[in-house]
Amino acid sequence: MEQAASIKFTSTLSHPLFKEHESVWRDTINKAHIKVYSRNETVLHHGDKASALWLVLEGWVKITRQTPDGKENIVGLCTDGYVFGEASLFPNANYPYNAEVIGERAVLAAIPAETIRKLIDENSSVSASIMSLLYNRTSETRLKLEQMSTMSASQRLGCFLLRLCHSQAGDSRVLQIPVEKHLLATYLGMKPETLSRSQQQLKSLGISVSGNTITISSIEKLREFVCNSCSESGNCETEDT
Amino acid sequence: MEQAASIKFTSTLSHPLFKEHESVWRDTINKAHIKVYSRNETVLHHGDKASALWLVLEGWVKITRQTPDGKENIVGLCTDGYVFGEASLFPNANYPYNAEVIGERAVLAAIPAETIRKLIDENSSVSASIMSLLYNRTSETRLKLEQMSTMSASQRLGCFLLRLCHSQAGDSRVLQIPVEKHLLATYLGMKPETLSRSQQQLKSLGISVSGNTITISSIEKLREFVCNSCSESGNCETEDT
Repeated sequence: MEQAASIKFTSTLSHPLFKEHESVWRDTINKAHIKVYSRNETVLHHGDKASALWLVLEGWVKITRQTPDGKENIVGLCTDGYVFGEASLFPNANYPYNAEVIGERAVLAAIPAETIRKLIDENSSVSASIMSLLYNRTSETRLKLEQMSTMSASQRLGCFLLRLCHSQAGDSRVLQIPVEKHLLATYLGMKPETLSRSQQQLKSLGISVSGNTITISSIEKLREFVCNSCSESGNCETEDT
Repeated sequence: MEQAASIKFTSTLSHPLFKEHESVWRDTINKAHIKVYSRNETVLHHGDKASALWLVLEGWVKITRQTPDGKENIVGLCTDGYVFGEASLFPNANYPYNAEVIGERAVLAAIPAETIRKLIDENSSVSASIMSLLYNRTSETRLKLEQMSTMSASQRLGCFLLRLCHSQAGDSRVLQIPVEKHLLATYLGMKPETLSRSQQQLKSLGISVSGNTITISSIEKLREFVCNSCSESGNCETEDT
């Protein structure tokens, strides 16, 4: 892992957390430790003291947990603008998962726990934004759980793609997803062969996969296919794009 | 729905939210509106202005969402000491689900949104407790999602029972669950026939079901069966009992 003296903020502040009080957050992130990681490097371990809130500036990070009988569960796949390590908001808390870089490299900002907690103490509206972050995190997770029963595998893959289109900056509908197939399948709660079949099914909606590159020809068609089976329909962030 | 002038607080304050600042919360809940509902009465609708934070004092409430194509998803099954309606913490928010009473009757405390928001504004340590509530809610939901891949159906049923043993007051291991089989199955992400098979499997661990009554002869045996497949093992609230 190397330290980067400075970093260009491109789509960094796209996370909803930073929409309000943007100048406060920009100052905070400018003072954060910017770290550059290479493939497979561990960012943090389950059980480590939660010493920072992390923001992905570039690249991909997988968040995992392990069961005592040895199963690995992919809790999150984070890319540009994603936040993780919310345990750092609480004194004496530990990270409840592992984080490891996937893809070629990742650039992350680590906002020290003391900095973020001081910000919360001093600024009640920042505190409200953080509550909102935590509340939205629950809603997202609840929705993902719901989709395990209400959506088909290909609809779940479609929803994952729609969220990426929304969170990544620019109008481009060409996504780079350097995530190995078995990881993506585990994250989406399906077997690798089901993921392959789902990719095939999405072809008829104009979605093509070539290596790590996914091209989506019509967001509207994909939405029609996915969102009718989702209780968040009409109220979802992916519908703002 | 009838208004109750007063109510005896038995196991009411068992929720972790109330562990700190118990006197502040007791005052707040004493000033809350206590409402008595009968079977199938609707407490709130998805989309209603979130005007109160709800605490279950007695009985059972099911929390549901519906997809545009007509599937009902059981988001939560709440009983004594459970909190719902966290949307009320945020100005101009709407409830993201429906809540309806199941079982014979339910007694609920509705803490008005203004009261709870004033409490947060005036008392930064209450604000910290609320953040903790939201953070824990995400962790619980994330764990439930994980368990869909890492646990068998009978382990998921076992985990649900362990949580009930933990949250319900007293040493009794006789649980009353007035929840129809198809609801419980949907909540646990399985088919009703899988739930029946799971109940059969748990018999060998000394768990017997008779109507709405479930008797657990050995918590320790149940834990051995369930917790080895869970990444929260060693750190779970159900292990405190």
